[in-house]
Amino acid sequence: MSVTVAGWVHEIRDLGGIAFLILRDRTGKIQIKFEKDELPDELVERALSVHRESVLSVTGEVFEEDRAPTGVEVVPSEIEVIAAADPELPLDPSGKVGADLSTRLDNRTLDLRRDEPRAIFEIRSEVLRAARETFRDLGSTEITTPKIVATGTEGGTELFPITYFGEEAFMNQSPQLFKQLLAASGLERVFEIGPIFRAEEHNTPRHLNEATSIDFESAFIDADEAMDVAETFVRSVYEAVQENCQDELETLGLADSFTVPEAGFPRITYEEAIQRANAAGVVDEQLTWGDDLPTEAEKALGEEMDQHYFITNWPASVKPFYIKDEDDDPEVSTGFDLNHPRMELVSGGQREHRYEELVEGFEAQGLDPAAFEYYTKMFKYGMPPHAGWGMGAERLLVTMLDLDNIREAVIFPRDRSRLSP
Amino acid sequence: MSVTVAGWVHEIRDLGGIAFLILRDRTGKIQIKFEKDELPDELVERALSVHRESVLSVTGEVFEEDRAPTGVEVVPSEIEVIAAADPELPLDPSGKVGADLSTRLDNRTLDLRRDEPRAIFEIRSEVLRAARETFRDLGSTEITTPKIVATGTEGGTELFPITYFGEEAFMNQSPQLFKQLLAASGLERVFEIGPIFRAEEHNTPRHLNEATSIDFESAFIDADEAMDVAETFVRSVYEAVQENCQDELETLGLADSFTVPEAGFPRITYEEAIQRANAAGVVDEQLTWGDDLPTEAEKALGEEMDQHYFITNWPASVKPFYIKDEDDDPEVSTGFDLNHPRMELVSGGQREHRYEELVEGFEAQGLDPAAFEYYTKMFKYGMPPHAGWGMGAERLLVTMLDLDNIREAVIFPRDRSRLSP
Repeated sequence: MSVTVAGWVHEIRDLGGIAFLILRDRTGKIQIKFEKDELPDELVERALSVHRESVLSVTGEVFEEDRAPTGVEVVPSEIEVIAAADPELPLDPSGKVGADLSTRLDNRTLDLRRDEPRAIFEIRSEVLRAARETFRDLGSTEITTPKIVATGTEGGTELFPITYFGEEAFMNQSPQLFKQLLAASGLERVFEIGPIFRAEEHNTPRHLNEATSIDFESAFIDADEAMDVAETFVRSVYEAVQENCQDELETLGLADSFTVPEAGFPRITYEEAIQRANAAGVVDEQLTWGDDLPTEAEKALGEEMDQHYFITNWPASVKPFYIKDEDDDPEVSTGFDLNHPRMELVSGGQREHRYEELVEGFEAQGLDPAAFEYYTKMFKYGMPPHAGWGMGAERLLVTMLDLDNIREAVIFPRDRSRLSP
Repeated sequence: MSVTVAGWVHEIRDLGGIAFLILRDRTGKIQIKFEKDELPDELVERALSVHRESVLSVTGEVFEEDRAPTGVEVVPSEIEVIAAADPELPLDPSGKVGADLSTRLDNRTLDLRRDEPRAIFEIRSEVLRAARETFRDLGSTEITTPKIVATGTEGGTELFPITYFGEEAFMNQSPQLFKQLLAASGLERVFEIGPIFRAEEHNTPRHLNEATSIDFESAFIDADEAMDVAETFVRSVYEAVQENCQDELETLGLADSFTVPEAGFPRITYEEAIQRANAAGVVDEQLTWGDDLPTEAEKALGEEMDQHYFITNWPASVKPFYIKDEDDDPEVSTGFDLNHPRMELVSGGQREHRYEELVEGFEAQGLDPAAFEYYTKMFKYGMPPHAGWGMGAERLLVTMLDLDNIREAVIFPRDRSRLSP
């Protein structure tokens, strides 16, 4: 059988009288055999003098060959050098020579010719697909909300300022207020997967300045139902990856260990969470009501829980103005987090839907309700009870695939010091 | 049968001894009947004194009633006023009182309680779903590229500047360069649907400053194959809307007229396009090679074609540096547009994949290749031939649904003068 194949030169092994060139593309690798006596000198010379990562087109006959990586090899009759590569590569796509993360990110094109990073982004693509399918199955409408905004969701902190035709504007840090406005519209149940921007100064393996946020919001549900959705969501996405990404999991060495989290994620209250953290003895000073959960406490708790779990009923004081308090206790909010043992994944809650209480909440957090009038005024025209949550897509991937650094889950990350490529 | 229904008060008709309250939610409308003699005064009083758009929960018995809008009505036993609406609404969601676009956009929550605008965004959601499915069926991987960039795709024009930790940066106007870098990676064939930002001063029914771009890029294909993909894409999306959005098309009065464009979109060259425009006599001065196609020429051509059509082989001089020229004529590019009779939808082409020619192209357009080194240097490490295109999601919707203004296709549009909500 005659074929034409095109791809990148992965490797050349010249054994003297015989040489092998391994050509690689997205679908795999194929061996091209050069029995030098049998082929025109010019063809052999041209093919074997290219550098690795050059792009070739090879026409020839396919033969079965058990010793070849794919069980077949091609004996070439025609070779075209489509794009010659420089002899020096900034990164070795064959993976034989390691590279640090920074070099890999500077040269993502080459880095993503390696199987492992590519597998991560094939899985990311499937995660996004499954995420949207899950939301649609739950009757949600996909929305697109603006990324350029006049005011930040939670005030002036951590916002990137932009100049918008002479006016001050910002890149949005969350679709929170928009998705609430739409849960109160005729759409009622909505989701968005899109970029968010946070100008936080942290530069750690867990922080990004531009990330992908997975947002869900629905009218006529409460915090418990929003947690049900979050659990269904996580499990569905894991199921899809298990079903559709076996090759990629294999590549990442996760084929055996990957499991779909069991249904019934435990739900513990914030109060129980600080008690457990105190009992674990990982914090210098005993945590008391109103303290945020420090990283070491979260970590100890995660080890103890050893699965996805919710922390519910956070103190109202540590949650933003748009989270509703419990009806019978204004100190306790309906806010919840969903944590993976390694880190927080989701933040959500029932929303304050009562106009007066909302405006009070703004003031209590030192925000000017007038600056958010486009949002607050809609609460006067029939705002249903509603709840929802937001999840970092990269955190979902980092925890799912056990990645060391959140930058592994973004093709071209943006952080405190990285603005290019 | 006893039910509890919750929704918005759409209308109250009080006829004296009997009154009807129409409750509305996403799934439709239901009639609540108050035979005042039969019900507690307090309940009747409470229910009928609420203003339209208040949110109620109604528990009662369901009866068949042919004269009711849905064939059933509810006789209430319990009514809860969940959220009382103000008597004065800035917009009438029943649609009886019209509102101009600006008022509607200021009050999208209320506007999207109307059937027609909601139908547009239900269709938009389906268009995005079908778009991604089509790309996946074509073997493409979904990518996410940064919206904060150090340099614009096409230089410094029409960019919104942002301050990134003291450094100058911009909001990206197109994922062009990133998707090319990824077509050359192991992913090979990629798509992205995400926001783009253009600081153009135009304020017309056709321009947005923040839009959703649908981008496709693939290694080892040429301009003709990229056009095939664009045609398949458009037809698949129309098919999905026809199949899954009949109710919404009905609402928009399009159920009868909506058709899937026939396969085989005509492909005319730029040269033919200007000849036809000249013959149509719509331009003051005869167009000659190298002129861009003015709006009136595009319009005349659209009327003549009366279907989707490609314009191919644009002059190299009017296309950006990354578009490859024809091998046998450097004056002629491989760039193409896909037009709907009303407007341009898609811009695409085969890309320049040769390093030397690429750098020359930068210089010819007055751009500094050094500022784009993260991009150009990858062309030295085995850059395959590749092609692709970008499409405005809003333009796709505007032409598909025959909308007057592109702002009808965005929930919260951003334009020269609109930055909120």
